[in-house]
Amino acid sequence: MASGRDTPRARRLLGTDRMEAFSDGVFSIAATLLVLDIAIHPPGTVLEQVLNAWPFYVAYVVSFLTIGAGWLSHTALTERLARSDPLLLRINLLLLLMVAFLPFPTRLVADALHGGSGERVFVTMYGLTLLAIRILGFALDAYARREHLYSPPQEDEERTDEPRELLPALGGYIVAILIGLVLPGVAIAIYFAVAVYLILFREIKRHPSRAHNSRQ
Amino acid sequence: MASGRDTPRARRLLGTDRMEAFSDGVFSIAATLLVLDIAIHPPGTVLEQVLNAWPFYVAYVVSFLTIGAGWLSHTALTERLARSDPLLLRINLLLLLMVAFLPFPTRLVADALHGGSGERVFVTMYGLTLLAIRILGFALDAYARREHLYSPPQEDEERTDEPRELLPALGGYIVAILIGLVLPGVAIAIYFAVAVYLILFREIKRHPSRAHNSRQ
Amino acid sequence: MASGRDTPRARRLLGTDRMEAFSDGVFSIAATLLVLDIAIHPPGTVLEQVLNAWPFYVAYVVSFLTIGAGWLSHTALTERLARSDPLLLRINLLLLLMVAFLPFPTRLVADALHGGSGERVFVTMYGLTLLAIRILGFALDAYARREHLYSPPQEDEERTDEPRELLPALGGYIVAILIGLVLPGVAIAIYFAVAVYLILFREIKRHPSRAHNSRQ
Amino acid sequence: MASGRDTPRARRLLGTDRMEAFSDGVFSIAATLLVLDIAIHPPGTVLEQVLNAWPFYVAYVVSFLTIGAGWLSHTALTERLARSDPLLLRINLLLLLMVAFLPFPTRLVADALHGGSGERVFVTMYGLTLLAIRILGFALDAYARREHLYSPPQEDEERTDEPRELLPALGGYIVAILIGLVLPGVAIAIYFAVAVYLILFREIKRHPSRAHNSRQ
Repeated sequence: MASGRDTPRARRLLGTDRMEAFSDGVFSIAATLLVLDIAIHPPGTVLEQVLNAWPFYVAYVVSFLTIGAGWLSHTALTERLARSDPLLLRINLLLLLMVAFLPFPTRLVADALHGGSGERVFVTMYGLTLLAIRILGFALDAYARREHLYSPPQEDEERTDEPRELLPALGGYIVAILIGLVLPGVAIAIYFAVAVYLILFREIKRHPSRAHNSRQ
Repeated sequence: MASGRDTPRARRLLGTDRMEAFSDGVFSIAATLLVLDIAIHPPGTVLEQVLNAWPFYVAYVVSFLTIGAGWLSHTALTERLARSDPLLLRINLLLLLMVAFLPFPTRLVADALHGGSGERVFVTMYGLTLLAIRILGFALDAYARREHLYSPPQEDEERTDEPRELLPALGGYIVAILIGLVLPGVAIAIYFAVAVYLILFREIKRHPSRAHNSRQ
Repeated sequence: MASGRDTPRARRLLGTDRMEAFSDGVFSIAATLLVLDIAIHPPGTVLEQVLNAWPFYVAYVVSFLTIGAGWLSHTALTERLARSDPLLLRINLLLLLMVAFLPFPTRLVADALHGGSGERVFVTMYGLTLLAIRILGFALDAYARREHLYSPPQEDEERTDEPRELLPALGGYIVAILIGLVLPGVAIAIYFAVAVYLILFREIKRHPSRAHNSRQ
Repeated sequence: MASGRDTPRARRLLGTDRMEAFSDGVFSIAATLLVLDIAIHPPGTVLEQVLNAWPFYVAYVVSFLTIGAGWLSHTALTERLARSDPLLLRINLLLLLMVAFLPFPTRLVADALHGGSGERVFVTMYGLTLLAIRILGFALDAYARREHLYSPPQEDEERTDEPRELLPALGGYIVAILIGLVLPGVAIAIYFAVAVYLILFREIKRHPSRAHNSRQ
């Protein structure tokens, strides 16, 4: 019934929609703003300049995929929420604050690898930002779990065990931060691998139950 | 009924959705654009440059949390609206105009605290922008209240008393603007405290009724 | 019925939603990007610099309100659409192309008024962009009307006569472009007046019917 | 029934909504960010500077229309999806990564045509980005088709044959990339023509079935 959307009760449900709309906004804007920091500089022929700018492309891809993986986690989480909660919104705001911050260390890392200096400092800063994003995503899930904010799983559903899935990512970040103090290039490679792992792992785990459900 | 969405009457309801979509867009873009103004500069070692850039981090966090608090207020308000109104849309547009303006004084304050000059002028400008945002949010609520645009509260609902909740924030801003004329750093600390207060207060107040409703 | 949303028929309706989502995105991003071009420059004390930057504030306000007025028109139009149409989407894309272009002439006008030169050229360019936005908005409405894409008006509805409402705005733009060739400052004042007129007029006209409908 | 939206089953459907919200965000932000790279430079009178900046306008229009055409394809695709799929989300993420990258080669091409050098390298880079976007859009459609993710066509529906429609676009891009190695200006003209073709073709093909359906 169309007029049913007009009642106070129906309107209340829009709150979760707007938490998702605001989050989608921040995730997609942060990912798209990354392109503004890609640049080429002399010396060299134009082709050399384009090729020498590889750190910008690498930084762009790693950060974009990390934000993409974070967005996938976020979507999976909000999909399972039966209700929201004030503290959940606050943790979410802190998570978005760190996601929106990521373009800054991304720019520093790319500049440093591209003929600048200070890779070790900037790669450490980048790693700490990624770690903070991951820990806040972890906190969001742990809080929703503890406060029973998730809807009960359906009988045919095989729920992803979030903590067990994310521990390797957390471990990867901590190892990479330590390695980055000496070998910043290796740390970047690990961040790339973790982003790919998070995207692949989540999708492979989610496949069976979702496909099954939607065929019903 | 799916086909019910196609009638003129059902379509009319989308208007509020788009007011929310446009508002969510402006809030999330303004918050995410803040990162573009974070920068590090010589002199000093790279690590010193990163640490000396603390005013940028502080300004980023204060403005992000203020926009986040403004977005939470805005969401709480639109959730309770039973119907929209032309003048309400206009006040909303002015509110968004000020929210979208915030990155500019944020940049000025950060530059000034980071080895520039003119902190007192810029911190005052920043405070006036925050005050304008708060007053317009207040006007939005007062107008909706006076014109009976809110849906009637449900029997088990304990409505937040918006004016009483926001008066401390307004008072905090006015005090901070006056203090900032002499001690700009203290004013920034107050703006941070007000943002945290607005986020915490709103959430604590909203907790009981919402949790109760969603468990029904 | 929840599962009703899963049918091909129900999904088809999302198309209009996404046209609105894409349009809301472009309108809100273009409006929020305007802030990036506000800047202050020497000479003068810091306070003088802030006050001398008035052309940036004026340009920001005029462009923000013009985009806001354009968004209000766009919302009013899509609310009344019973169905979409391929050519409508194409005209809409051209409209968004011009809306997203507006920050560029806005920046040129503000720079010119702020101690630069070439006001007359830039103000003319600005006016032509505004005129193009208005004409494309007009074309969108005329096309929807001719192709009977609007839903039939409800018995108690008093439809805004779009062409009659917009002709003064079109006239105002043409007059302002001609005046701006000699007196660019006056043209800017007219653009501001037209934006305010569009926002006020639309809202006053829409008031009676909408308020009446929602009270039913 | 309003409360029906609260069940786990109903919430699951939001996942597709958020894939669309994130995609709409990236498409609209990438299109709107293009304006930030438009600039005018000396030498010449102000009017000459504005007219000499034509490469920026051309690059803006071609990239905006290409993103617009990509968004139209994407909308048409998601409208027909009966269900989502983990790998589909991953291909979509790669597509968005390339769409969000487009402003960078756009800027390079415009700078080069505007009195810089290296047009051939930059136009090739631009063409490769467009080709990657098109191939990933093609892959998205091919995968959805192979995995039977599309809803079955309705009896009165005349489905667009995506591969046959897109092959001319793919061919056009490959020819343009080769031509651009020698005549970069001609390549840009082809990219413009392909964008217009994609927008016109799609709309003309979609007209009959959609208009018919919505009149039911």
